[in-house]
Amino acid sequence: MSGLASELISMEDHHSLFENEIRKLPVPVCSIFLKDGRIVPASFQKTNQAIGSPDAEKVNHEFPKTVKESENKILETVPLSRASASGKRVAVLFSGGPAAGGHNVIVGLKKALGGNNTLLGVKGGPKGLIEGKLFKIKEGDIAGIINTGGFDFLGSDRTKIKTEEQFAAVKKTAKDFQLSGIVVVGGDDSNTNAAVLAELLSDDKVQVIGVPKTIDGDLQIGGLLPISFGFDTATKVYSELVGNILQDTPSSRKYWHFIKLMGRSASHVALEVALQTKPAITLISEEIEETKMSLEGIVSHICDIVAKRAAKGINHGVVVVPEGLIEFIPEVKRLITELNETMAKFGEDINKMNFFEEKKDFLYKKLTAESTKLMATLPDEIEKMLLLDRDSHGNLQVSQIPTERLLIQMVEEKLSEMKRHPDEFKHLNLSDEEAKCFMASKFATNSHFFGYEGRCGAPTLFDAAYTLNLGLAAGSLILDGKTGYIVSITELDRGGKVQALPLTGLLNIERRHGKDEMVIKKGLVEINSPAFAYFAERRGVWAEKDLFTSPGPRQLWGPISKQMPISVALNRGCDSIRFDLGKETSL
Amino acid sequence: MSGLASELISMEDHHSLFENEIRKLPVPVCSIFLKDGRIVPASFQKTNQAIGSPDAEKVNHEFPKTVKESENKILETVPLSRASASGKRVAVLFSGGPAAGGHNVIVGLKKALGGNNTLLGVKGGPKGLIEGKLFKIKEGDIAGIINTGGFDFLGSDRTKIKTEEQFAAVKKTAKDFQLSGIVVVGGDDSNTNAAVLAELLSDDKVQVIGVPKTIDGDLQIGGLLPISFGFDTATKVYSELVGNILQDTPSSRKYWHFIKLMGRSASHVALEVALQTKPAITLISEEIEETKMSLEGIVSHICDIVAKRAAKGINHGVVVVPEGLIEFIPEVKRLITELNETMAKFGEDINKMNFFEEKKDFLYKKLTAESTKLMATLPDEIEKMLLLDRDSHGNLQVSQIPTERLLIQMVEEKLSEMKRHPDEFKHLNLSDEEAKCFMASKFATNSHFFGYEGRCGAPTLFDAAYTLNLGLAAGSLILDGKTGYIVSITELDRGGKVQALPLTGLLNIERRHGKDEMVIKKGLVEINSPAFAYFAERRGVWAEKDLFTSPGPRQLWGPISKQMPISVALNRGCDSIRFDLGKETSL
Repeated sequence: MSGLASELISMEDHHSLFENEIRKLPVPVCSIFLKDGRIVPASFQKTNQAIGSPDAEKVNHEFPKTVKESENKILETVPLSRASASGKRVAVLFSGGPAAGGHNVIVGLKKALGGNNTLLGVKGGPKGLIEGKLFKIKEGDIAGIINTGGFDFLGSDRTKIKTEEQFAAVKKTAKDFQLSGIVVVGGDDSNTNAAVLAELLSDDKVQVIGVPKTIDGDLQIGGLLPISFGFDTATKVYSELVGNILQDTPSSRKYWHFIKLMGRSASHVALEVALQTKPAITLISEEIEETKMSLEGIVSHICDIVAKRAAKGINHGVVVVPEGLIEFIPEVKRLITELNETMAKFGEDINKMNFFEEKKDFLYKKLTAESTKLMATLPDEIEKMLLLDRDSHGNLQVSQIPTERLLIQMVEEKLSEMKRHPDEFKHLNLSDEEAKCFMASKFATNSHFFGYEGRCGAPTLFDAAYTLNLGLAAGSLILDGKTGYIVSITELDRGGKVQALPLTGLLNIERRHGKDEMVIKKGLVEINSPAFAYFAERRGVWAEKDLFTSPGPRQLWGPISKQMPISVALNRGCDSIRFDLGKETSL
Repeated sequence: MSGLASELISMEDHHSLFENEIRKLPVPVCSIFLKDGRIVPASFQKTNQAIGSPDAEKVNHEFPKTVKESENKILETVPLSRASASGKRVAVLFSGGPAAGGHNVIVGLKKALGGNNTLLGVKGGPKGLIEGKLFKIKEGDIAGIINTGGFDFLGSDRTKIKTEEQFAAVKKTAKDFQLSGIVVVGGDDSNTNAAVLAELLSDDKVQVIGVPKTIDGDLQIGGLLPISFGFDTATKVYSELVGNILQDTPSSRKYWHFIKLMGRSASHVALEVALQTKPAITLISEEIEETKMSLEGIVSHICDIVAKRAAKGINHGVVVVPEGLIEFIPEVKRLITELNETMAKFGEDINKMNFFEEKKDFLYKKLTAESTKLMATLPDEIEKMLLLDRDSHGNLQVSQIPTERLLIQMVEEKLSEMKRHPDEFKHLNLSDEEAKCFMASKFATNSHFFGYEGRCGAPTLFDAAYTLNLGLAAGSLILDGKTGYIVSITELDRGGKVQALPLTGLLNIERRHGKDEMVIKKGLVEINSPAFAYFAERRGVWAEKDLFTSPGPRQLWGPISKQMPISVALNRGCDSIRFDLGKETSL
């Protein structure tokens, strides 16, 4: 075998040149976790600041034990003493969709727990916890997963632990494996579950700590929890791709690209990618809901920008569409609410029906006249999607809806109409020359959906550092005997301040599956946030001129490796998009 | 305005932190172009090695002037003297789809021509040459475009210069702008055009030089021209995405992803991405043609691997599908040939028809019974695509055909059939336990098409260096008074050897649009090449076990920035995938 062939074989199974080198990459560590250059756990102290949920009374009633313990007050790290418990047995699990940096949470946990405690991995998420699929994580495992992307070391799933049988099974697992703690790495729903488990296992002296994960960025709480991990990597992957396509548009000069981005309901991903790349058009679901824009209004808005650019000879551009858009358009939202309520009520009957047409007829009859009318105007493809089954959390599978293609189809029709009836673009005040240029223009399109590409990429240096420190924080809380908290790091441009927020303080009452549930509120894009305000101020120029930016592939080495999300930097009032999470430390 | 807001505004219009830093990045330069650390043009000398086309007699007859000059012999750089003509006026244009590194060709050209000659840019590709849209490229322009992706500095188009009017227009442009040379940056078709222009403009003393560009990698000629530029960047963009998705599969444990990759007819892109990432299944069109696999055979092949993995509890994986696949399946190829010939013959009549059904009926009547039968078995969507209009080179727009979705649909059906009739998977020799596991398995899928994302990304360090040196070579040839050559760099792992190949030596006679044409032969994947042989040897293990690799985002700084395509390294007998194209030099 040639030297090259054997080099190539040695690269198989996660040993590309890249993967080998990132395992050696030093990662910034917050000073609270460093003593004499070595990594150590931290101590936490209760502050006077309590988190008040509007539904606090009901929540406190449901979670008496954990609330009594935490008083809903925030913990902050203090450099006074160092936690040093021993003999603890801690299980860690991934819950929900993967996000970059999950492996570094495990690394941080292991480093915090040290040699005198045991870290166990739960295979296959919450389901693995129910089924007791735990194994001991060794020091050698850690060396393999440091700084790598994906959740494949443990696997994940989306089981929501909610039935009495499931609770009993978790209790059994905790007993069988003599667990002293469980660390749940997950999004809003999974951390709601962590709050429930903390209360459930309180008497068994099993601590439960949550770690904020989700590429969607919708697990964020103002200054207390600036962002969930995975968001930075996902948005940088998408931003590179959107930037590459933006760069392509004036190169080949013939396409409008409609790009849908993963991110569930919230438009954080779309907003961040817009701030990174400056496309001509970015739709933000929350603004559309706030301003009560109709589907027709959105299409007209896109057409106006396409026409104005065409009038100047620019027949290309990019439209960024958030995954959850369709749920935020008021008339569509009403339709979906009606469908959701009907599904919750008659779901079992409907699931028994064999044919799509049968289900459709049944559902149509339950809708208001207004919704029936809207449904009938939507393309067949979309109608079918709206009637599809829901995920196990009762949410509409919005990622299945090809909103980007729906918009292309409607924009094409509307543009043709504008060209047939010049009155339709009178409001654009085009000169005769410009109008001629628009009338002669072509509107050729491509559609994309970026999602899975961004969940398991190698973490950015930001996510690598953020997760390592979150893992160190979670491990420290366990050693400190705390339960029912979610870890957080603030002051991202000033060395990082490590905190823990009481999960019960984050719970609100929301209507799901047609009934009230206590859940962590999804952090949507706020129209009055600095990030949105900056975007709203600049987007007019981006639409008019090709001022786009190509942020490039994320770099792990070199002069630009230390960037945090722009939206987070703006919302947190940072002076720069460069982060500072402490000193680079070799693991 | 806050400090951060003004920093963000300063980043608009191609000034991200990344774009600003890559402009300062030193790029390797071959030693032939360096003197006392400064960049200088090189000299070329005719070797004794001629390139013999099988159709040489006919080609030489059509290209008497350029063949007389070049004798179809290869030029190589010699360190004897330095070309130093002055007063030359040289135009450069991009032709066809964008590829990363185009801007550095211009940088290299400008550096080679120096201050005593003039470089002109042609706006909008060959069409711009016909219409005389030229402008002077200044030193300041160079500082802006160095190491950036895209073709947006000039723009591009796909016009093929072939009519007498077009030839006359090009002659006029050359005269109007007093051109002494034209550099055509393009793929196989565009370089064929360059050969024609070289002959056409020979008497006018206008030199024409080609630069090998295409992300498809199908402009490669064994040891003489190892690869076209843009291939490395595109495949590294796609490899990262495929690697991310591979990493996602055992993380979320529920999907098979079918990923179609751009690359026109050839499967170089798919093969390179397979070598970089090691997915369970990669289809190579050229092998399918060679082994006469039917569509049904391909589907069975995929189903067998899916079933064998499911039998072991692995219900996830990745299938890489080359863009041009469908054209290489013998029975489909026959159908397409029949359609192409019919379109060439009756294209005008068909274009006059208003309705799809009318066109379809007309075309169906012209097909053989066998093709009619095949056509009828294909899903409607695919049928429609096959009947779509062709591009201006008369090629089927293969990128429009959703082969990935066609395969998903057929594999789903076949798997259901296998589960209904266990005899259908008897040949897999599964144990009872394994068979049960397969029978209970789910087959959930996602489809992707990666194409536009990879054409305009920032060039890898390989493409940045390769194109800079190709530009230096093209400029040197112009100064040396040469015409009708394409530039090339070999010995990619040993400092780089700069050569020029006579374009006439590369021409062959091929049947296109139903008639014979002299064209540069597309370099397809060779089944007996070292790269394919290595892939064929390893793919069985990749299918069986999850040995995949995540090559990560391409790095411009740090320990792994110097990688060349694996397939090129294998085919050229390199000892490593690390390239060496000379000494890093600040531009």
